[in-house]
Amino acid sequence: MAGFAQATTVSDGEAQLDPQWTVGGRPNGGYLLALMARAAATPTHPHPMSASAVYLSPPDPGPAAVEVESLRDGRSASQARVRLTQKERTCVEALFTLGDLTTTGTPRWTDTEPPSVTPRDELSRTPVDPPGAGVRIDMLEMVDQRITIEAPGDIRGWLSFDDGSPFDPISLLYAVDSFPPATFTLGGSGWTPTLELTAYVRGIPAPGPLRVRQRARLVTETLLDQVCEIWDSTDRVVAQATQLAAYRLARP
Amino acid sequence: MAGFAQATTVSDGEAQLDPQWTVGGRPNGGYLLALMARAAATPTHPHPMSASAVYLSPPDPGPAAVEVESLRDGRSASQARVRLTQKERTCVEALFTLGDLTTTGTPRWTDTEPPSVTPRDELSRTPVDPPGAGVRIDMLEMVDQRITIEAPGDIRGWLSFDDGSPFDPISLLYAVDSFPPATFTLGGSGWTPTLELTAYVRGIPAPGPLRVRQRARLVTETLLDQVCEIWDSTDRVVAQATQLAAYRLARP
Repeated sequence: MAGFAQATTVSDGEAQLDPQWTVGGRPNGGYLLALMARAAATPTHPHPMSASAVYLSPPDPGPAAVEVESLRDGRSASQARVRLTQKERTCVEALFTLGDLTTTGTPRWTDTEPPSVTPRDELSRTPVDPPGAGVRIDMLEMVDQRITIEAPGDIRGWLSFDDGSPFDPISLLYAVDSFPPATFTLGGSGWTPTLELTAYVRGIPAPGPLRVRQRARLVTETLLDQVCEIWDSTDRVVAQATQLAAYRLARP
Repeated sequence: MAGFAQATTVSDGEAQLDPQWTVGGRPNGGYLLALMARAAATPTHPHPMSASAVYLSPPDPGPAAVEVESLRDGRSASQARVRLTQKERTCVEALFTLGDLTTTGTPRWTDTEPPSVTPRDELSRTPVDPPGAGVRIDMLEMVDQRITIEAPGDIRGWLSFDDGSPFDPISLLYAVDSFPPATFTLGGSGWTPTLELTAYVRGIPAPGPLRVRQRARLVTETLLDQVCEIWDSTDRVVAQATQLAAYRLARP
């Protein structure tokens, strides 16, 4: 079992998509985004500050090619496009803004108070085959995820790596796509393939479990958008993300 | 003065960036995104459902090239990358998910109640040289924008086209970037260049003025992220957007 940093290594434009970081046998979308961010990071601008991806075709575990094109290389930020392909097929394309989050300044103002969440030790860890999911979620062998349904369309909980690794700006891109779709509380099917995911990483997380809130905004018969917000153990908001996903109503 | 649809025409990969749809002489970022969406739209998939752009270098009014690359052409959605260049310089690159919003189904559930906004006829139209803006906002000759500061970091108001055109899924991409930065209520300077903008268009707006809410999330000394939500005259949420922008504190 490869740790997250090792499973997202890209060298000379080649990656090995890890069978462990999967849902129903398919690599998780946030895992793929983190891997693409690692390929785009530079010594001067090591941190993804924005990441926006369109998901075109789900890859299988195994070899994949990751191609980075620099779009702008500025003093305080650079921007890049990254394409992940497998067997000549483009699977994900993403745009990144990269920078150094140690230099972007401390919070001056926020509207984003940490939500109340049931204490972590009062919640159970989600198993790899949660009831109703319909698929095996192999990545849940690697992370300790504990969730509670706060209200319809509003899931909250905790996330940490099993091997004790702290989260960093790259693995936060996994965290924003690691929770179940908020629609599982609304009678939707488990199958909500992501069309687009955008994440803003706003700070370097302090060590300790992340506090995660995932909530649905608008759900139609075929599409939904949801918001994921993440706070670190010092109550600082460190990532805010939105995604547009396809959606199917559960069959009665 | 060109209406919005005419000002966002792209033919054979060539556009004329209109001097009217500018802020401080520079084309508005939402205007550019709408123009790029128009270039990517197809008869089968005429509507942008997601649009994510990185802003690399601000173009000047005048000729620009718009290059569309199809990434996936599915039954219910297609995805494309669009690049806007001027004088060999890449200015904006964007990823789109396109579809037909007449077929995506009616709202089943939403957390997004329309916010209370001061009635439109009790508010004044924003002038093209608003106090404190520091720049002339030529696009305000073309749209009737009325705003009120509801709370620090929370701006609400109304938007309509002067020529009576209804909004559509493409011009909603302008609407989500048409309001002043929410930080102008927090002591920030007027200058908040967008690094990344992502918009989800969730419905075809009914005719009538749009209700707009723009609010800041986290503001640090150099970056901010904000959310823009738009409801139509039937109280349906039709667009939800986020942006990451550079930020400077006002000098005392």
